[in-house]
Amino acid sequence: MMTWKGTLCILLSLNVFLNLSSFCDGHPHSAQTINSESAVRVLSNDTAKRAGVAAEVAGYADVAKQIIDLAVFGAAQNRSYRRLADFTDTIGNRVSGSNNLEMAIKYMYNAMVQDGLDVHLEPAKIPHWVRGKESAEMTAPRAKTLAILGLGSSVGTPPEGIEAEVLVVQSFEELKHRASEAAGKIVVFNQPYVSYGETVAYRGYGASEAAKVGAVATLIRSVTPFSINSPHTGWQDYQDGVKRIPTACITVEDAELMWRMAQRGQKIVVRLTMGAKTLPDADSFNTVAEIKGWQHPEQVVLLSGHLDSWDVGQGAMDDGGGAMISWEALSLIKDLGLRPRRTLRTVLWTAEEQGGVGAQQYFNLHKVNMSNFDLVMESDLGTFTPIGLQFTGSDAAQKVMEEVVKLLAPINTTKLEAHGEGTDISPWMQAGVPGASLHVADSRYFWFHHSEGDTMSVQDPRDMDLCSALWAVVAYVVADLQEMLPR
Amino acid sequence: MMTWKGTLCILLSLNVFLNLSSFCDGHPHSAQTINSESAVRVLSNDTAKRAGVAAEVAGYADVAKQIIDLAVFGAAQNRSYRRLADFTDTIGNRVSGSNNLEMAIKYMYNAMVQDGLDVHLEPAKIPHWVRGKESAEMTAPRAKTLAILGLGSSVGTPPEGIEAEVLVVQSFEELKHRASEAAGKIVVFNQPYVSYGETVAYRGYGASEAAKVGAVATLIRSVTPFSINSPHTGWQDYQDGVKRIPTACITVEDAELMWRMAQRGQKIVVRLTMGAKTLPDADSFNTVAEIKGWQHPEQVVLLSGHLDSWDVGQGAMDDGGGAMISWEALSLIKDLGLRPRRTLRTVLWTAEEQGGVGAQQYFNLHKVNMSNFDLVMESDLGTFTPIGLQFTGSDAAQKVMEEVVKLLAPINTTKLEAHGEGTDISPWMQAGVPGASLHVADSRYFWFHHSEGDTMSVQDPRDMDLCSALWAVVAYVVADLQEMLPR
Repeated sequence: MMTWKGTLCILLSLNVFLNLSSFCDGHPHSAQTINSESAVRVLSNDTAKRAGVAAEVAGYADVAKQIIDLAVFGAAQNRSYRRLADFTDTIGNRVSGSNNLEMAIKYMYNAMVQDGLDVHLEPAKIPHWVRGKESAEMTAPRAKTLAILGLGSSVGTPPEGIEAEVLVVQSFEELKHRASEAAGKIVVFNQPYVSYGETVAYRGYGASEAAKVGAVATLIRSVTPFSINSPHTGWQDYQDGVKRIPTACITVEDAELMWRMAQRGQKIVVRLTMGAKTLPDADSFNTVAEIKGWQHPEQVVLLSGHLDSWDVGQGAMDDGGGAMISWEALSLIKDLGLRPRRTLRTVLWTAEEQGGVGAQQYFNLHKVNMSNFDLVMESDLGTFTPIGLQFTGSDAAQKVMEEVVKLLAPINTTKLEAHGEGTDISPWMQAGVPGASLHVADSRYFWFHHSEGDTMSVQDPRDMDLCSALWAVVAYVVADLQEMLPR
Repeated sequence: MMTWKGTLCILLSLNVFLNLSSFCDGHPHSAQTINSESAVRVLSNDTAKRAGVAAEVAGYADVAKQIIDLAVFGAAQNRSYRRLADFTDTIGNRVSGSNNLEMAIKYMYNAMVQDGLDVHLEPAKIPHWVRGKESAEMTAPRAKTLAILGLGSSVGTPPEGIEAEVLVVQSFEELKHRASEAAGKIVVFNQPYVSYGETVAYRGYGASEAAKVGAVATLIRSVTPFSINSPHTGWQDYQDGVKRIPTACITVEDAELMWRMAQRGQKIVVRLTMGAKTLPDADSFNTVAEIKGWQHPEQVVLLSGHLDSWDVGQGAMDDGGGAMISWEALSLIKDLGLRPRRTLRTVLWTAEEQGGVGAQQYFNLHKVNMSNFDLVMESDLGTFTPIGLQFTGSDAAQKVMEEVVKLLAPINTTKLEAHGEGTDISPWMQAGVPGASLHVADSRYFWFHHSEGDTMSVQDPRDMDLCSALWAVVAYVVADLQEMLPR
C-alpha cells in the first residue's frame, strides 16, 4: 500500500490535500457498512429483477462451499501462506527498479505457469530510486545515533553529509508560525499520529514545506501509532519549483526525544548523510494470469495485489499477501475444475508504492475495453482475519454484491461495506467500473507498514486461507453470473 | 531487570536451572494474591494484636491521602516523569562500566542533594563489558543483513568475523538430538517464547550448550513475545570449562526466517562479526539518599531501583522509572514535612543487569546490621499503571502489610500479592528480611525490555505519579509504625 489512496490524492497543493483528506483517507477503518435505506426507493420492476439475481446468486451456495472447503479445510489449506513464505523468503523485498523486483516477476511468472494458468507479462516503465548508504547522528546536546529510513524520491546529501541545528515542530501550522527560525536548519516534524490518511501528509509534503522556509533537510516522525524504535519509509513528493532537500523518517522515540530537548531550550544538532539518488526509469512488467471465460472471454473480473514492496522487511504484508491470495483464488477455482462465463484475470502490479505506476500504465492501455471490465478487485490492506468486502459501484451493483457476500456465511464474512479502495484499481473506479477491496482486521497494519517489521512473522496461514476463500468466491460468482454488474 | 531473578537462579548446570525455573520465574504475572485462609489459624492474642495494628495503620489514612494528593493532583504531579525524562534524555543509556553510568551517578547524586536529601555514595566494583562494533549478514541462500545485539559477557569474533553454516534448532533438546551436526556451525536457537522466566534460559545458556557440541558461535532468538524486527540484549553466562564462543540475539523475524529455510533443506551461511570484549572491573557506586528516622535512625526501610541499564535505548523503563519513583517517594515525604520514626533510605543500585552486582556488595557490607532492616523494596518491573504490591515475609508481616495497602484505596491499588521480587533485594529476602516489589500492568514490558525501544515513549506521567504515591505511602507508613515488621 502506497502513500495515498488513489491518484486524486497526489496533489501538488497542501491546502487542496487537506481539504480532500477525508475523501482520500486510506484507513480501512473509515469504511462503513452500506446503509440499506435506499432500498426502499427501488421500483417494482427492479424488485423483481433483484429477486431474480438473489435466486441466481443463491444457486452458487454449493460451489461457494466447495471453494471454502478446499481453501480452509482441504488440500489447499495453508497453501497461500506457504507460497508467500517461499516467495518472500527466496526473493526478499522488491522495491521498484531493483533486481529483486525483476527476480520476483520471473519467479511469479514461472510459478503461475507451473500452476497451469495462462500467464503473460505486460511491460511498464517504473521509477528507479535507490536508497544508498544512509545514517543520522545527533551530535548535540549529546551524541546519539538516530535510526532513519530515507524517503522514496528523496535526493541525497553531499557525501560528507549535512550537519545543522534542528528546529522541531509539531505541525505544518507551527512551521508557518516559526518560518523565520527555519533557514539553514534541519526541520524535525514531530506530528502526532492521528490516522494514516491524515498524518501521512507530513511524510508526503514535509520536505517541500520545510524547503519553502529555508530548511536544508527534514526528518519526519514515522507515520505509525506504535514503535519499537522502528523507522518507516514511504514515497514523498517534491513540489515543482521548490528546492529539493533530503528527507527521511526517524522513529517516534527520537522525534519525541528531540521535541522534549527543544522544549527545554536545548540546542540540537544533527548530521544527516544520505546516498539516495534517482536513476533513469527501469523496465518492468505487470504480471497477468488468467482463467479464460467460456462464454464471454473478453469480459473480465480482475483480481489484484502488487508485487513490488519497499526495500525493507520482506514485503510480506504489503503486499505479498494480496498478490498471493489473488493467485490462490485462481488456483482454487482451477483445482475444482471450475470455469466461469467471463475471464478471471489476476494482475500482480509493479511499482504500486511509487503511486500505482504499473497500474496506471495498465489502465491507459486497457481502458479502451472498459465496458468489458465487470469488476476490479484489489487486496492491499493486509491479509489478516477477513472482515468483509469494501465495494464501490452503483446502487444496483451493490444489491447484487449484497447477495454475493451472503455466500460467505460459512466463513462469517458477509459484510458489504462502502468504498472499495486500492491505489491500483482507483483509475477504474473513478471511471465508473465497480471495484472491491478486502477489509481485514488490521489494527496493527501500520505498526509494520513500510518497516523492517513487514515480514512473514506477521502473517497467519489460516487467515490467508480465509482471505483466499473470500477472494475466490466473490471473483468466481461475479464472473459467472448471467449479467455483468450494472454500472 | 536482569536476566534471572535472584542469585539462586545463577546456576552453572542447565538441569538444575530447568528444575528450579518455576521458582525463579521472573515474570510478575506469576504473582498470586495471598490466600487469606491461613488467617483462621491465628491465635486469639494474635487477633488482638492484629486489631491493634489495623487501628494503628488506619490512623495513617489522612497522611496517605496527603501523599497521594500531592503526587497525583498536587504540586508534584508529573514530577517523577519529568525527572526521568530530564535524566534519561541527558545521560542516555548507562551500561555497567560505562562513562554514561558514571555521569548518571553524579547526576543523581547532585539532583538528590539539591532536593534537600541526605546523600552519599558507596563504592562497588562492577563488570566492564563493551559491545564494540558488531554485525551479522546471511550470505546464503541469499544476502540479508541480520539485526543483532551481542549478549553481555560474550567474547568477540576475530576481526574478520566468523563465517559458517547455520544449524537451526528450536530447543536444547533438539540440539542434543542433533549434536553430531553442530561441529563448526553457528547454532541458531529459534525457541518459541513461552514466558520470560522460562525462555530466557536460551539467552543465558545457549552459547555454552552449543559450544559443548562444537558450535563456533550462537545466534539466539530475542526473548520477547512481540517484535518489529527488534533485537534484545541481556546478560549471558559461560559455563566453566566450556569453550567461550561469541553469542548474540537476533530478531524473532530472522530466527523464523532461518528456521523456515532450514525446513526447506536450504543451506544457510552467516558471517558474524563482534568486537565485544571484557575489560577489568570498573569502579562505581551505589547511590544512597536518606530521610533519617527521628526515633530509630538506625532502623531502615529501603526503597530501590537500579541506575544502570543496557547500552541500548534510554533505560527509561528498565529501570530509570524504578529509580525515579524511589527518589520521588522521599521527595513527597520531605515536601509534606513528614519524618518517620525509622530511616527511609533510597538506594539506586549499580550494575544490576550483570547480576545484581552492586546490590550484592551492599548486602555484604550491611548484612551485619540485618536486624535493623525493617523492609526492603524494589521497583524493577516497570512503572506502568500500578496494580498492587508483591510481598515476601512472614504471615504476621503479611497481616500488617494487608492493612498498609488498604491506605491505597484512593488510587485503587490495595492488592497485596505473594512473592516480592527483585534481583537487588533478593539477598535480603533470602536472609529473612521482609521484601516488597511494585506490580504494574506490564503486558508490553518484554516488548521493549533490553531493546532500543526502552525509551521515554513507553512511560506515562500519570502512571508514574500513581507508582510514586504507592511507593511513598507504603514506605512511610511501615517506617513510622510503632513496631518493625515481624520476621
